[in-house]
Amino acid sequence: MGKITGVFTWRHFLISSLALNVGFVLRFVNEGVISRAEQSMGNGFCVEEKKMMKFSETVMADGEAHVSKRGPHVSSSVNACTDGQDRVINLDHGDPTMYEQYWQRMGEETTIVISGWQSMSYFSDVKNLCWFLEPLFASEIIRLHKTVGNAITEGYHVVVGTGSTQLFQAALYALSPSEASKPINVVSAAPYYSSYPSVTGYLKSGLYRWAGDAHSFSKDEPYIELVTSPNNPDGFVRQAVVNRHLGIVVHDFAYYWPQYTPISYPANHDLMLFTVSKSTGHAGMRIGWALVKDEDIAKRMTKFIELNTIGVSKDSQLRAAKILRAVSDSCEQVDGKGENFFKFGYNLMAGRWRQLRAAANESGLFSLPEFPRACCNFLSRAFEPQPAFAWLKCEGEIEDCESFLRSHKILTRSGRHFGVSPKYVRVSMLDRDEIFDLFVERLSNIHS
Amino acid sequence: MGKITGVFTWRHFLISSLALNVGFVLRFVNEGVISRAEQSMGNGFCVEEKKMMKFSETVMADGEAHVSKRGPHVSSSVNACTDGQDRVINLDHGDPTMYEQYWQRMGEETTIVISGWQSMSYFSDVKNLCWFLEPLFASEIIRLHKTVGNAITEGYHVVVGTGSTQLFQAALYALSPSEASKPINVVSAAPYYSSYPSVTGYLKSGLYRWAGDAHSFSKDEPYIELVTSPNNPDGFVRQAVVNRHLGIVVHDFAYYWPQYTPISYPANHDLMLFTVSKSTGHAGMRIGWALVKDEDIAKRMTKFIELNTIGVSKDSQLRAAKILRAVSDSCEQVDGKGENFFKFGYNLMAGRWRQLRAAANESGLFSLPEFPRACCNFLSRAFEPQPAFAWLKCEGEIEDCESFLRSHKILTRSGRHFGVSPKYVRVSMLDRDEIFDLFVERLSNIHS
Repeated sequence: MGKITGVFTWRHFLISSLALNVGFVLRFVNEGVISRAEQSMGNGFCVEEKKMMKFSETVMADGEAHVSKRGPHVSSSVNACTDGQDRVINLDHGDPTMYEQYWQRMGEETTIVISGWQSMSYFSDVKNLCWFLEPLFASEIIRLHKTVGNAITEGYHVVVGTGSTQLFQAALYALSPSEASKPINVVSAAPYYSSYPSVTGYLKSGLYRWAGDAHSFSKDEPYIELVTSPNNPDGFVRQAVVNRHLGIVVHDFAYYWPQYTPISYPANHDLMLFTVSKSTGHAGMRIGWALVKDEDIAKRMTKFIELNTIGVSKDSQLRAAKILRAVSDSCEQVDGKGENFFKFGYNLMAGRWRQLRAAANESGLFSLPEFPRACCNFLSRAFEPQPAFAWLKCEGEIEDCESFLRSHKILTRSGRHFGVSPKYVRVSMLDRDEIFDLFVERLSNIHS
Repeated sequence: MGKITGVFTWRHFLISSLALNVGFVLRFVNEGVISRAEQSMGNGFCVEEKKMMKFSETVMADGEAHVSKRGPHVSSSVNACTDGQDRVINLDHGDPTMYEQYWQRMGEETTIVISGWQSMSYFSDVKNLCWFLEPLFASEIIRLHKTVGNAITEGYHVVVGTGSTQLFQAALYALSPSEASKPINVVSAAPYYSSYPSVTGYLKSGLYRWAGDAHSFSKDEPYIELVTSPNNPDGFVRQAVVNRHLGIVVHDFAYYWPQYTPISYPANHDLMLFTVSKSTGHAGMRIGWALVKDEDIAKRMTKFIELNTIGVSKDSQLRAAKILRAVSDSCEQVDGKGENFFKFGYNLMAGRWRQLRAAANESGLFSLPEFPRACCNFLSRAFEPQPAFAWLKCEGEIEDCESFLRSHKILTRSGRHFGVSPKYVRVSMLDRDEIFDLFVERLSNIHS
């Protein structure tokens, strides 16, 4: 067992260290222009590092090859071999590697152990309409919401999904009238999450179709409105904007956690989506959950996941249960050990937003959203939202902020992917310390 | 850690014990008539057992409540409290719990250990076009195919999926002409896998549509033919039947493993699907893989999985890697320990098919397929296929074999779900020993 743990330890640090450039590659995947990243290595790196980093080659937009050099175990030696100015900083994707340090500090307390003969069946819980939901995970979800106070769970059905992306599609399937003559309209207020149009549209479903910005939706037809609150990309608290009859609202609460935004009320909407990716930082688990009031809708979502993937990984559900339990324990200070997870996250995000605002001021070329303070019932204090993404605006003459920042080797996602002006970009605030520090330093030195 | 393992051990045995009736419930889910299984307990069970089995209540087709009583840890005490004749035997679903005994014998050698801070990123391998594929899992897939000799891997791209069901949909997405004026036809020769029509059709995609039995496909239009070999439900080795221009073939090799069928050649088709569910028995992992010759198709399949679930559980991939390694080790007798996995499976299936054929003869009401012997390069012997499902035919007057067997409290899946006559039913051969033995005993006692 010791040997096994050791092997995974090494592998995972290595893999973790690749995330920066992988995010880069994902962007190419998203845009359908990825090539197999078999290009030769870039120059300017220690020879010894090349072997360590052989997995991490990737390709820049201009075809140049670069190497990622992140990760707590290799960062110092890598820094010694590289020039920070030449380094590509990829903050296009919201990979939540910032949280690794917390879980490292927790040590082996949250280690999951699964024997070879466990969890072999397709089935998890026959009592539950969501028959593939692990009961232990379900109970930890309910406990966590009670602890944080961000959602009501009484009277709700829990549906587990392979991330909230699958649950979003399950919701569209469940809410679409199955016998309608044409697909139902799916809208969200711009700036909306950049994946909504593609995930709604990629199968050209006859059940639902992307209908754009909710602000400009004027048809007298059934619609589903997606409300992400706090919003991705801009971090503002949101409510439905269409508010007409024939409308159904899905609430995406991926970021409704106290490290990002004040928890002002326990949400009690009809259909609410959550994910471990942004709450605890475990994106690789691919685990999300929905709280669903209506039994028939919950059944139809379950049916979607049955048809789509015949359930959800039991291994990841069991691991997620253990992680959520540790989070709740840390909040309740069970055994008096472990830092409160959300206070850790809150402090880290608060510091990063201070750094970012200072860098934007220093530069003078960028502006950031200003948020109203609100009282957080969980942290018992008032604070301004400190979102998982920064919604950065290039001021003045710069029309294409993404291109402008790319010329400074900072990769972000253009406002046009979110249905608004390219003067805006979305920047991940969830990367590792080293990368974030490099980012704000570079940003502060960009002048007109 | 010891405590943790213990908790999971108990929980999983309990969950495992539910599979029989859960399968039953799944059937209701499939037919859209599931209710929340909150009915009262059935009669005739020990009071002590009721507490143990509180999760396993479910509902029969006739509304009667029953309790599942399976699982190696509870079977003897349960048998003492029940009348075998009253027990519902659910073999509708192919839940591969038969394999638990093998993995129990392997002990802790295949236990997976994952720390809380590992596998947090979305990304696994930037070098690979399938950026969410764990490299360790990829290498074990390639090793296993080499060991077994059932597929060529050189020159193929590996794409991992949340089970082969997701990969099947990824293949449809990847192979459909994106700019076509109407959806591509998807066909499979009857009897075909009962999920193909629903999984192809549930989203009413404009890219692809179910077009039925490949034998009767006569349109001069593009098509995708699904070839399952050995076939689900009937176990026969198959090849494409349409064989026209404008056709693309997807090979589903879920059952092309030596416990089920002679491995007569290493398959080298353009797009081949595999899954751990039926090869190693780990259905709860939701892990499958595709071997894909064409790079663009592999990229499009990867894109589908990115849009559908943003990758595949890392936890399950790491666990699958360990399981596949143990299987290959057992074949190569690394360290001289461990029973050859496929010989274990072969012997178990051979014994079950002997039992089943004897029971069918004893009854006189049923017939089974007769298979030609073929040479298996892996086991170095000739044998007749011994499929994961029995394709049972009710002879004589009985028109609806599923209803007939249900009247004897044996749950199976009717031939009509597979595009053929209701005189046929599909029966899972992969359940635990206790259930299988009960099934053949009951079958042998059914007389006209």
